[in-house]
Amino acid sequence: MITKNTIKQIASLRQQKFRKELGLFVVEGRKMVEELLHSSFETVGLYVTEDFLMDHPSFPSAETITKVQMEQMSGQDTPPGILAVVKIPQQIEIKTHSRLVLALDGIANPGNMGTLIRTAEWFGIHDVICSTDCVELWNPKTVQATMGSLFRVKVWETDLPAYLQQAKKDGKNIYGALLEGENLFRLQAKAEGILVIGSESHGIRTDVLPCITHPITIPRVGGSITESLNAAVAGAIIIAEMTR
Amino acid sequence: MITKNTIKQIASLRQQKFRKELGLFVVEGRKMVEELLHSSFETVGLYVTEDFLMDHPSFPSAETITKVQMEQMSGQDTPPGILAVVKIPQQIEIKTHSRLVLALDGIANPGNMGTLIRTAEWFGIHDVICSTDCVELWNPKTVQATMGSLFRVKVWETDLPAYLQQAKKDGKNIYGALLEGENLFRLQAKAEGILVIGSESHGIRTDVLPCITHPITIPRVGGSITESLNAAVAGAIIIAEMTR
Repeated sequence: MITKNTIKQIASLRQQKFRKELGLFVVEGRKMVEELLHSSFETVGLYVTEDFLMDHPSFPSAETITKVQMEQMSGQDTPPGILAVVKIPQQIEIKTHSRLVLALDGIANPGNMGTLIRTAEWFGIHDVICSTDCVELWNPKTVQATMGSLFRVKVWETDLPAYLQQAKKDGKNIYGALLEGENLFRLQAKAEGILVIGSESHGIRTDVLPCITHPITIPRVGGSITESLNAAVAGAIIIAEMTR
Repeated sequence: MITKNTIKQIASLRQQKFRKELGLFVVEGRKMVEELLHSSFETVGLYVTEDFLMDHPSFPSAETITKVQMEQMSGQDTPPGILAVVKIPQQIEIKTHSRLVLALDGIANPGNMGTLIRTAEWFGIHDVICSTDCVELWNPKTVQATMGSLFRVKVWETDLPAYLQQAKKDGKNIYGALLEGENLFRLQAKAEGILVIGSESHGIRTDVLPCITHPITIPRVGGSITESLNAAVAGAIIIAEMTR
């Protein structure tokens, strides 16, 4: 039977401090948990409510808890009735395989972060490099927004300017989404290398800017006075075009 | 001087019920308020904190309030120090002008709703038709996600299936983002007509489906097992491609 202490500990995983301390994060929802169980991630606890079990009688074995206990543990307004506690995998050495690698410079919004990882997977990008100040991948909102892609896409956190400086020295193409650059839809260069997407409020920052070998712009339609696109939207449009 | 009652009333605008009852909504943040003041929307109250005024001494005249009062009124965790109360414009008869019109079928997430409107404007689409069950445009999160585009893009709420049935009868092209359809990147049809984006969980619903004359699919890269794209991302990729 689940103890009050365990409930308290799982609830604490809403905060980054405790995720770091305990090396654990939370996954909620049937689809997400199913994808988790098919992944290489290590599940250390799996809890369902009776209501959930009634609706999904064939679900793999899990500990049944009350609705109130689930509400205490869950980070969601309407808990889906299934929650897994998962080990945060140890970061291994960066070794990318995708032709085009996605690099994120200071993405702060968990929805954008998760959406970018989900979009990358759709278009066959399985390697994502993040600056150390991107929002944490294990944040429940980021996890949710990936819709399961975080179990399959490799995401590394690193000193992004240093990483890109080395990549540039190695002769790699480094594309950057900027307000001034080559028209995305007339791009001549091959879609091979690294694509950098900047943060919501600052774009690509000054320490990363000198590494960009191919600035790219998404052309705005004449007369439009909106100043920018959402970071996840800009990333998606560029990724879709470069990988088509 | 602002009264306790006014503060209470403005705070109540976080709830749809009171926005409807009072016919008002709230806009926060310097950039958004500047765009508001340049729009045809009617501002009925404008409040700033002393801290905001110190940072922006040349800002147009507004009522100065205390930080605590602003915190009571604001819907944001970190209030930006400037808040406007705005009249919800009366909906006028639908009359579209854009070559391509965006139609939203049951978009439930305010971030997606706002981002779709912002993206539409970037690509020159100034008419958006929403089903009656889309998340409310005046929801603070929707307002925020539009980044000001809601002041310039016309957004109508209507019986979407009936509207599209009539449009189909009139011989319009009605594109729909679906999992099975013509490859977006090999599209032959002209980008003229109506593009329908479905909801996050149900896609385009059964009452709208028969109206679609051109189903469109964003091709997934081989090997990818992710099931779908975020609704705002899918919309953006299709809009970018169709308006290029």
